[in-house]
Amino acid sequence: MSRTLALILGLVLLSGLALHGDEGMWTFDNPPRALVKERYGFDLTDTWLEHVRLASARLNDGGSGSFVSADGLLFTNQHVANSQLNKLSTPERNLVKDGFYAATREAELKCPDLEVNVLVSYEDVTAAVQQAVAAGASEAAAAEQRKAAMAALEKASTEKTGLRSEVITLYSGGEYWLYRYKKYTDVRLVFAPEEQIAFFGGDLDNFTFPRFNLDITFFRVYENGAPAKIAHHLAWSARGAAEGELVFVSGFPGSTARLLTLAQLQYQKEVGVPLQIATLTARRNALERYAALGPEQARQASPGLRGVENSLKRLEGQRDGLERPGIVEGKAREEEVLRAKVAANPEWQNAYGSAWDEIAGTQAALRERATRLAWSSLSGSRLSGTALTLVRYAAETQKPDAQRLPEFRDSRLESLRFGLTSTAPVYPALEEAQLAAALDAARRALGPQDPFVRASLGGGDATSVARALVAGTQLGDPAVRAKLLDGGPAAIAASADPMLALARRVDPVLRDLRTWQENTSRTADAAGERIARARFAAYGKTVYPDANFNLRLAYGKVAGYAEDTTLVPYKTTFYGLYERAAAFDEKAPFDLPERWRAGRDRLDLATPFNFAYTGDTIGGNSGSPIVNRNAEIVGINFDSNVQKLPNRFAYIEDASGSRAVGVHSAGIIEALRGLYNADALVAELTGKP
Amino acid sequence: MSRTLALILGLVLLSGLALHGDEGMWTFDNPPRALVKERYGFDLTDTWLEHVRLASARLNDGGSGSFVSADGLLFTNQHVANSQLNKLSTPERNLVKDGFYAATREAELKCPDLEVNVLVSYEDVTAAVQQAVAAGASEAAAAEQRKAAMAALEKASTEKTGLRSEVITLYSGGEYWLYRYKKYTDVRLVFAPEEQIAFFGGDLDNFTFPRFNLDITFFRVYENGAPAKIAHHLAWSARGAAEGELVFVSGFPGSTARLLTLAQLQYQKEVGVPLQIATLTARRNALERYAALGPEQARQASPGLRGVENSLKRLEGQRDGLERPGIVEGKAREEEVLRAKVAANPEWQNAYGSAWDEIAGTQAALRERATRLAWSSLSGSRLSGTALTLVRYAAETQKPDAQRLPEFRDSRLESLRFGLTSTAPVYPALEEAQLAAALDAARRALGPQDPFVRASLGGGDATSVARALVAGTQLGDPAVRAKLLDGGPAAIAASADPMLALARRVDPVLRDLRTWQENTSRTADAAGERIARARFAAYGKTVYPDANFNLRLAYGKVAGYAEDTTLVPYKTTFYGLYERAAAFDEKAPFDLPERWRAGRDRLDLATPFNFAYTGDTIGGNSGSPIVNRNAEIVGINFDSNVQKLPNRFAYIEDASGSRAVGVHSAGIIEALRGLYNADALVAELTGKP
Repeated sequence: MSRTLALILGLVLLSGLALHGDEGMWTFDNPPRALVKERYGFDLTDTWLEHVRLASARLNDGGSGSFVSADGLLFTNQHVANSQLNKLSTPERNLVKDGFYAATREAELKCPDLEVNVLVSYEDVTAAVQQAVAAGASEAAAAEQRKAAMAALEKASTEKTGLRSEVITLYSGGEYWLYRYKKYTDVRLVFAPEEQIAFFGGDLDNFTFPRFNLDITFFRVYENGAPAKIAHHLAWSARGAAEGELVFVSGFPGSTARLLTLAQLQYQKEVGVPLQIATLTARRNALERYAALGPEQARQASPGLRGVENSLKRLEGQRDGLERPGIVEGKAREEEVLRAKVAANPEWQNAYGSAWDEIAGTQAALRERATRLAWSSLSGSRLSGTALTLVRYAAETQKPDAQRLPEFRDSRLESLRFGLTSTAPVYPALEEAQLAAALDAARRALGPQDPFVRASLGGGDATSVARALVAGTQLGDPAVRAKLLDGGPAAIAASADPMLALARRVDPVLRDLRTWQENTSRTADAAGERIARARFAAYGKTVYPDANFNLRLAYGKVAGYAEDTTLVPYKTTFYGLYERAAAFDEKAPFDLPERWRAGRDRLDLATPFNFAYTGDTIGGNSGSPIVNRNAEIVGINFDSNVQKLPNRFAYIEDASGSRAVGVHSAGIIEALRGLYNADALVAELTGKP
Repeated sequence: MSRTLALILGLVLLSGLALHGDEGMWTFDNPPRALVKERYGFDLTDTWLEHVRLASARLNDGGSGSFVSADGLLFTNQHVANSQLNKLSTPERNLVKDGFYAATREAELKCPDLEVNVLVSYEDVTAAVQQAVAAGASEAAAAEQRKAAMAALEKASTEKTGLRSEVITLYSGGEYWLYRYKKYTDVRLVFAPEEQIAFFGGDLDNFTFPRFNLDITFFRVYENGAPAKIAHHLAWSARGAAEGELVFVSGFPGSTARLLTLAQLQYQKEVGVPLQIATLTARRNALERYAALGPEQARQASPGLRGVENSLKRLEGQRDGLERPGIVEGKAREEEVLRAKVAANPEWQNAYGSAWDEIAGTQAALRERATRLAWSSLSGSRLSGTALTLVRYAAETQKPDAQRLPEFRDSRLESLRFGLTSTAPVYPALEEAQLAAALDAARRALGPQDPFVRASLGGGDATSVARALVAGTQLGDPAVRAKLLDGGPAAIAASADPMLALARRVDPVLRDLRTWQENTSRTADAAGERIARARFAAYGKTVYPDANFNLRLAYGKVAGYAEDTTLVPYKTTFYGLYERAAAFDEKAPFDLPERWRAGRDRLDLATPFNFAYTGDTIGGNSGSPIVNRNAEIVGINFDSNVQKLPNRFAYIEDASGSRAVGVHSAGIIEALRGLYNADALVAELTGKP
């Protein structure tokens, strides 16, 4: 068997017409009913879909979750919660390191700035957006008209329903949908394990299977000071995921780029991905230097470092995937086929035929500006990013809603204010280190005469400039930020805060770049929309749209795979955790929390801990519930293995060993009961006291 | 760290002048003193070397071992012992499946045909062999003269010392050495575990690390009916292998081909290895079909199948290694450098310059005949192979010693007879299946008009021919074989046994092929010898000779490595065994013997079980002792990981994750004590009652 399986290792096939594996991140309006029926003999009913959708939640820190009790219990990953855990921590109380459990509601801790969204309704507004474009409008005018139509739809919906309303773009503009979210902003921490067990193996084991991570956290959403009543919550499967079982994952995959043209893919391979790696490497190095200063500095830098390392490992996997034969060649074949179909139909050729070359032109232009676009940024530090948002808030909110940058539309302001007034602690020394590193990296990459470098450094050196800015700013105080927002544009414009002054100097440069980039993107998007129409014309709606941090359903089965010349099992057990710790003589990051070392004999070591499954997921799916046919929780998604990493740009065939990784529901209960004495939580999950 | 390590993954460097890793299978006359001193600060003394050499043993079934008590206790792998265990088994008593332990000497079981050799002395006879060649002799005459000189040296040594004496060729004929072995033929079984734990994970986990195999067996050598007194035996290290520790492995690596020319390597890549895979695949398929007939058939086929699967997996690893960029290119560079050095020196150019082209000519000729050479063979079944040996014995022993095929020289006849008169059981149905498959495969590959096919099948079909041969032959009876040998050439010539008749018909065809092959090899060898001299001239004796199942010393350190984007630890523990069993729900080959399932709580699960180390080993090193600086046993070698597989043709750099794999001495004692109640054995090993 190993030989046969070895032959198909490394196979990389592409999304397109024929779906070979358990492919696709499907919108709930177009679920993979036929595929699931054909491959697994299961009927996805409307009732099932509605139940799962309403039990699924987006965490706006960047992840997914699900409701698992009628009293608002929200289930996600520790690494999704990590930023809130860090914000709730102090030098004396380190929730990231030591974990947390509130045995009573009173003991639950309110998160400073976590917003949770549930997609309660959606409607197709493609016609409304497209009809807003006047006949014969220029590309720029058409874009403005679409933007205005989208803003109007959002505003009307918000006013009518009180729900967070967003018009989202699918299929590169082939469709527009109005999504309405119920919003929770009073979110409290119930349970988190020690990071050592949530992230056992650290960055090394990240994107690895077999795996041994209790990467879970429970929050509770509140409304009007009381636990929210949740009609649609998922039941808990005590048995959990079984080998070969059909499972679904419902969550918010962040971003894929599978519908790119060949020119766009080549740009990503040659320029986009390498530049992202370079900028993130600079950020990682700054965070590592800061963390090395001491344990408190390490604690402060930890969530940032974990996030950056995670992104870097993912990008390196993408780079390696793009460099291996397969993805680019597959894209070239796919594009050739579609272009031939278009060319064979004079009407299609007239409408769509030039789109690919137009996109190729934009990519050539992007190559020229890519370095400036990548390094001209104030987002390296929280204070400088906040300052830029405030400066733009002042400018944008004075414009009509339809003409604003999208993030300042009326429908988004409440969420924006929630983030800006967060009471999460700001660490000045960390801010200074990050800002200095970002400004210095920009100077090195762009040279002293670059407009961004001149505006930000003014000839000074990055270290001194950052020190003076952080020492002089008052934006670290949430009350100051709230007061500026309350004072409106005038208050912000009047402030002499040096960080705001920096933002004012830099904003024109960044706006110029953004405008240029948006113009370029608009051309590409308009061409992309025509390609999307060509694809619909040629194939119908048999493909799923690229992911964009909106709700998707994926499906697959629990399954091991072949690697090297042997098999990787479908699951791990607690035995394997103790094996990996012992095999490394408990050297970090393979050391166990004391609770786990001391409590070994209270666990049934053969209990399933983590598991692998096919199913098309990507970053943002972290925390997604993994459910069985009965919509019961059999696990929680938290990662993918390294084989799957290039899947941003193409679906990676199951047969190549590409797998998503989850924590098993049986292992969760075993640990909560055996090691954390979390009896009330277990009772709430399982319904058994 | 993972990122840096990931960058050097896949690096394949080559043997040559600069040794980058812990490279080399060194003869004891030229040990790697300087390298070990430089890399590890350790002095290899003459005393240390003599002690380790005299404690090292060759098992002529094809493996290595070591003496571990003063009373003849011999330590090797279960998979090296597997053939003897099978021969000692019956349908009622399955020692392979159930294992064996003799708590007393009386209970020990005598092996039917296991010979054990210890290298007690060696001397350089290069001058004597080379001077035997008359000035101006033709290539063929020179070869005959060398052969005669070697036979005479062997015969004189045997007569003088009573020791098994062999003249071996090193460095493609650059050196000749007379090796003298003390020989043990009364070898008894003391302990073997269940194959399920010796070979846990089966063919899938073969060539894999992390690994969980108790691949050990203990024999005892006897002399004159009593346990042999062994002056040089290795002490046992209770602590065993520690991370980073310097270790040595002393054993009998079977065969490497690292000194090939580029033309020879290309032949192996394109013809040699693929043909070996094809013939072995035919053998495996026949054995698998036979094993599928029932449990007793599976038992009979098991050692053959295990051996063939092992060889196939290794060959496939070699093929993959040769197909990846690295080895062939490295050989080309290395050859270019040496040829340039030779060309720059007129004397060298005159003596050696044409050698590479002469070898290239032989490889071109080999390509023409390769298919006939590969498929024309009677070695597929034991009875047909025995018949051919008997027929040749009759012919060869009538010739002067110096003119015989080497395996029939007087110095080898005693060991030959020991093998031919083995009382190991012969299974007629298995013989028939294997012989039919071999003859049928030959017919398919060579066609009905091929001389071998005509001589063996005579127009019949393979199944009927094999059935008649096996039904009619009496060679399955060891007494018949002994009587034929006692009767000498006349008795063998007079026998009407149909298997002997087959051998008589086929022998001329096979001799023709062998003569052709030997002539071709002689030309290649003569040229290879000149290249060896060129290498000595250019570099001195800084390289080690290719392995040839004679004693070698390798060194390295206990170390994990990077794989994918994480780390593989240097060791495993018993936790990992239970993990792998539980993760596969104990599906075969990941099921545990009942003793291990029931006895879990009698083990300290954190005890080291297997470990990985650098050190240059290859098939034949199985069973080699792994010792520390004090020459104490810290483990026993039993495998390599998949990264190391192409190392037949080139040393594979440590940095690529290439590792040898051993069973840890601490885990062995823990299992013997906790699960097997082998107290007497543990006391003998550790010296503690």
